[in-house]
Amino acid sequence: MIKFAQFGAGFIGKIHGANIAKHPKSELAYIYDVYPAAAEQLAAQLGAKIAASPQEIWDSDVDAVLIASSTNTHADLLRGALKAGKPIYCEKPIDLDIERVKVVAQEAQKSDVPILVGFSRRFDPNHVGIREALQSGELGKLEMMHITARDPKPPAIAYIKVSGGQYRDQTIHFFDMLRWLAGEDPVEVYATGTALVDPAIGEAGDVDTSMLILKFASGAMCHINCSRRTGYGYDERVELFGSKGMAVSHRKPRGEVSLYKGESVVSDGMYPGWFERMEPTFYRALDAFIRAVEGEEIAYPNLMDGLKAQLIAEAAIESLHTNQPVKITYWQPEYDSPISKEYLP
Amino acid sequence: MIKFAQFGAGFIGKIHGANIAKHPKSELAYIYDVYPAAAEQLAAQLGAKIAASPQEIWDSDVDAVLIASSTNTHADLLRGALKAGKPIYCEKPIDLDIERVKVVAQEAQKSDVPILVGFSRRFDPNHVGIREALQSGELGKLEMMHITARDPKPPAIAYIKVSGGQYRDQTIHFFDMLRWLAGEDPVEVYATGTALVDPAIGEAGDVDTSMLILKFASGAMCHINCSRRTGYGYDERVELFGSKGMAVSHRKPRGEVSLYKGESVVSDGMYPGWFERMEPTFYRALDAFIRAVEGEEIAYPNLMDGLKAQLIAEAAIESLHTNQPVKITYWQPEYDSPISKEYLP
Amino acid sequence: MIKFAQFGAGFIGKIHGANIAKHPKSELAYIYDVYPAAAEQLAAQLGAKIAASPQEIWDSDVDAVLIASSTNTHADLLRGALKAGKPIYCEKPIDLDIERVKVVAQEAQKSDVPILVGFSRRFDPNHVGIREALQSGELGKLEMMHITARDPKPPAIAYIKVSGGQYRDQTIHFFDMLRWLAGEDPVEVYATGTALVDPAIGEAGDVDTSMLILKFASGAMCHINCSRRTGYGYDERVELFGSKGMAVSHRKPRGEVSLYKGESVVSDGMYPGWFERMEPTFYRALDAFIRAVEGEEIAYPNLMDGLKAQLIAEAAIESLHTNQPVKITYWQPEYDSPISKEYLP
Amino acid sequence: MIKFAQFGAGFIGKIHGANIAKHPKSELAYIYDVYPAAAEQLAAQLGAKIAASPQEIWDSDVDAVLIASSTNTHADLLRGALKAGKPIYCEKPIDLDIERVKVVAQEAQKSDVPILVGFSRRFDPNHVGIREALQSGELGKLEMMHITARDPKPPAIAYIKVSGGQYRDQTIHFFDMLRWLAGEDPVEVYATGTALVDPAIGEAGDVDTSMLILKFASGAMCHINCSRRTGYGYDERVELFGSKGMAVSHRKPRGEVSLYKGESVVSDGMYPGWFERMEPTFYRALDAFIRAVEGEEIAYPNLMDGLKAQLIAEAAIESLHTNQPVKITYWQPEYDSPISKEYLP
Repeated sequence: MIKFAQFGAGFIGKIHGANIAKHPKSELAYIYDVYPAAAEQLAAQLGAKIAASPQEIWDSDVDAVLIASSTNTHADLLRGALKAGKPIYCEKPIDLDIERVKVVAQEAQKSDVPILVGFSRRFDPNHVGIREALQSGELGKLEMMHITARDPKPPAIAYIKVSGGQYRDQTIHFFDMLRWLAGEDPVEVYATGTALVDPAIGEAGDVDTSMLILKFASGAMCHINCSRRTGYGYDERVELFGSKGMAVSHRKPRGEVSLYKGESVVSDGMYPGWFERMEPTFYRALDAFIRAVEGEEIAYPNLMDGLKAQLIAEAAIESLHTNQPVKITYWQPEYDSPISKEYLP
Repeated sequence: MIKFAQFGAGFIGKIHGANIAKHPKSELAYIYDVYPAAAEQLAAQLGAKIAASPQEIWDSDVDAVLIASSTNTHADLLRGALKAGKPIYCEKPIDLDIERVKVVAQEAQKSDVPILVGFSRRFDPNHVGIREALQSGELGKLEMMHITARDPKPPAIAYIKVSGGQYRDQTIHFFDMLRWLAGEDPVEVYATGTALVDPAIGEAGDVDTSMLILKFASGAMCHINCSRRTGYGYDERVELFGSKGMAVSHRKPRGEVSLYKGESVVSDGMYPGWFERMEPTFYRALDAFIRAVEGEEIAYPNLMDGLKAQLIAEAAIESLHTNQPVKITYWQPEYDSPISKEYLP
Repeated sequence: MIKFAQFGAGFIGKIHGANIAKHPKSELAYIYDVYPAAAEQLAAQLGAKIAASPQEIWDSDVDAVLIASSTNTHADLLRGALKAGKPIYCEKPIDLDIERVKVVAQEAQKSDVPILVGFSRRFDPNHVGIREALQSGELGKLEMMHITARDPKPPAIAYIKVSGGQYRDQTIHFFDMLRWLAGEDPVEVYATGTALVDPAIGEAGDVDTSMLILKFASGAMCHINCSRRTGYGYDERVELFGSKGMAVSHRKPRGEVSLYKGESVVSDGMYPGWFERMEPTFYRALDAFIRAVEGEEIAYPNLMDGLKAQLIAEAAIESLHTNQPVKITYWQPEYDSPISKEYLP
Repeated sequence: MIKFAQFGAGFIGKIHGANIAKHPKSELAYIYDVYPAAAEQLAAQLGAKIAASPQEIWDSDVDAVLIASSTNTHADLLRGALKAGKPIYCEKPIDLDIERVKVVAQEAQKSDVPILVGFSRRFDPNHVGIREALQSGELGKLEMMHITARDPKPPAIAYIKVSGGQYRDQTIHFFDMLRWLAGEDPVEVYATGTALVDPAIGEAGDVDTSMLILKFASGAMCHINCSRRTGYGYDERVELFGSKGMAVSHRKPRGEVSLYKGESVVSDGMYPGWFERMEPTFYRALDAFIRAVEGEEIAYPNLMDGLKAQLIAEAAIESLHTNQPVKITYWQPEYDSPISKEYLP
């Protein structure tokens, strides 16, 4: 039984907490939130205790921590947990300031506890399915990848302003996904985007509609298109085109009902939001983390994966501003935890 | 070059005539229609001559005849062509009076000219596809067959009254299809139906909405459902369920456009009518006939197939009226033309 | 908080127990099983107590009971719970002996506690979707219904022998479903079936492959086809054909991955079994029951629904044996609980 | 009856010739080909005469010409036909040398005969369907367009060398399509590509696998991906993403057969080549041309459309070589034929 302490009792914290309580191999011992009322409510519901401070958690006998607090607290909590030697499940992103991420990565290399960064889409069975088709050799060599990533509605302007922008906040999931799918780091990115959804997003210095092309050293290319708003729910779709065939992880419909009437067939559309579509991936990510904590040699998105996705985002932002293709510069600590070598679900 | 004479210049006659003109191995020499104006118009368009009487055609040097005149003329024209030794492509049904069909079949056995009866659905590539899946052994042994056969709109009541009823007119295509797909004759039929679409159809002594179950000696079963009216265009669909798998010839959509909007996906619906859906099968049926006339050993729906489909229809009508399962009685002349042994497309 | 006692700790009991524990408005207080070891294991896992006998449960303060024990115990437990005034969630069927079912129904009419019979498919969102399309008037008047119900693998012969046969065991779900979808009781049934899957099933006096046609007083018809074995996983599909359009609850695929290669597109197939496909319906059925226990006027499959489905099965069995259409005889106690009037999810 | 003369009796010439013969409003009077044997064979088949020289055609009484000869002859034939005042259906491209195209365009402005350039995809019903969805306002304002354009097999290296390269030869169809769909000219293009399919294509100075992003002045963006080889047949797919919804012209499958077996559903894949997929568009394009010749105010791809598509290709090639986004420079003669103002099918 793995005893967890969890930081954060907001929307995503409630999901993680319930999963920890549900998983047969874990229990939720402590919750910490800067808003004690939120922590208390979730703790009562899940039978956990309240921690008065992070320090109380570092000093406790918990076996692992789950960081689901606001982004600006991640780096300090990661460093605290590393110091305390607690395995870490940390929501993405690590920090909006790439330099702070590097500092954390530098410290993480001295440790060998598992650190899972919350790129939960790696645990979606459809995405896993096309990855396996590529890895099995059935598709031949990867030549083109297409990722569609569109949210139904933009977040509040207030959030946009502190989010780091579309690439650090939304596209970052797919910067991770393309590395995981290709099994290779991209070397160059060309990004173009604009604010078509809401001029206020443009005034806030951000874009809401983007197209990107990334190149791999192998010659393979990846196109990503991102929008902050569709007229038809959540839209995520990935296509791997190889020398021998193509695998598609389709838009997932909400249901399987069709109405035949007049000249048309009307079928169930998309899920209303990313959460309804991706909800099952959180449990699977937690399960992978628990198995890693138990010592199983299982691959998962780790701290270096989190850092690399952010480095790609930085290059994409530079490209967006200069309208030029930008080489992606990776940064490597002497980080060498054995679990960082592979990134399989 | 095979020289054709054609009887009938109505809707279906125009299709056949154009196909004869288009096929590189055939030409249309004569057209005969009881309405000379219709014959003249089509003849002018296709560069054919008018025949003043059927006799003129029997006496001519044409290599084959295509009978697309009204049903009540089929039997006499078939007998005339048989006497003249001309290969025959005859639209279905042979005759509404099963006894007249038997007389024709009796005479046909003395002849060895190819007689193709117009069950053109045997030439639809999708239906051929599922038949091949069954014949290849991929589906194992056939256990259940499902046929959906629904027209967008009922014909005029005047036509209903002379059509022979839903089973002799509409379902008959599928009585042929199930034999062709199963490679086996059904032995019993239970039919139930009513007039839900239009009470006038009921008053005319017919039904417009039917469900049937047919049994084969092998133990396999076939369900057919028929309607004279859908709210969504022409609907034909066939499913073969075997011991190892299932093959489906799907409803064929009119196009491949989808509109994602709000909570739904709206896609192109069905074809407006059976003709738009099945039009390409007529050319393929003609091609098969031409190859048979040229001596190729090719399978096609022949006179015995036409007779058998009508015998099944008679049994189904008896079942409809008695609400009892009815054994199907087949009738066999000493008919033994070599081409009658197989019914492959 | 509704306190449950549960009878049965087998496969389906584990599902129900976990759902009771998971639902925010219920808790599992007692478990009873004739095999104490099974009860103990489940009780330990879910934090429940062991009941030494049903009587201990009747005497306890539990608010409701869930009967998931073997079929032959259902009738007695139902009568015990009715006597004790406990609301009842009972797995189907009520009893294989229709006379015993009538006795239970007779007693149930004196009570007004909610009794939910476990026809959980009524809670599947796709089936609910097509029912709403019909009830909204969008399809016009129902004319034809098609139900495909095929399990991947037959149960053990030992189970077949005590199951009551294909219609009482497998098809019964769909005898309920067709009433629920049509909003009308069928009046006649014609059933035909045979043992194509396994001769041992035939030797046990049962069939494994069946086709049925049921008629409603309105003139609408329903076709059901059932198999105990597919070569491709679990296959359930329902189609409602109305005077204005058609609604389809499609075969639900396991995932959304497609592989384009050579001449084919290979996509994710069906779920491996009914449970993987239908698992979420159990929680929804429990939720409906809890809401009914709390006094909400919510419709659900009740004891009369359970009885009627079994009466249809009896008529179908008679038809199977006589190869004749059989009128369905309904039996009515003076049962008149308010919740029996509607059967909405 | 419109009398045609046709230049070219090769693969595409045979298609055009047969369509002219088939269309009820046209007849094929003359064929000219530099290989007299080819011209003779086609002329015999279609009942046309052989022209000894283009001049014979200019001097004849034909009402229109169809230019389906090799690319390097197009410009001269266009100029000849313009001089003779004959309406022109000309296969794309106009000429590989953009300066020669400008000269033709300059001369064309003095004339007012219809000139249709063979971008036949504008006549595909699926593509027309999504264009109508956009034009009707149902999609709102266009924000993103995605075009997938992949051939099953690369042409021979010998052809690659004279083709003008992937963008002038293959992608050019889609440079036209995006203008036609968007109703707006793109202003900038970023193109990246490489030879992944066959190193010999790279050695010939060309690419075979490309991704492009084009921007419109409205802020909308278009992604194109092109490959010279798939492992699964011909793949063309277009998606219009607007502020209110999305319309998709799907990959069109070859048929509608599905085989359910084991864990998969195997369905009919793509057409083997672009021609099998696009064949019906040629007749529709001819029909549009005939209607224009008859004076109907119908829109079609004209000479300026042909020129613009080539100017986009030139910019894309510059971008490919410099790895920089390139502004597209349009060139405008005083060309002002009324039919050039719109480009509707």
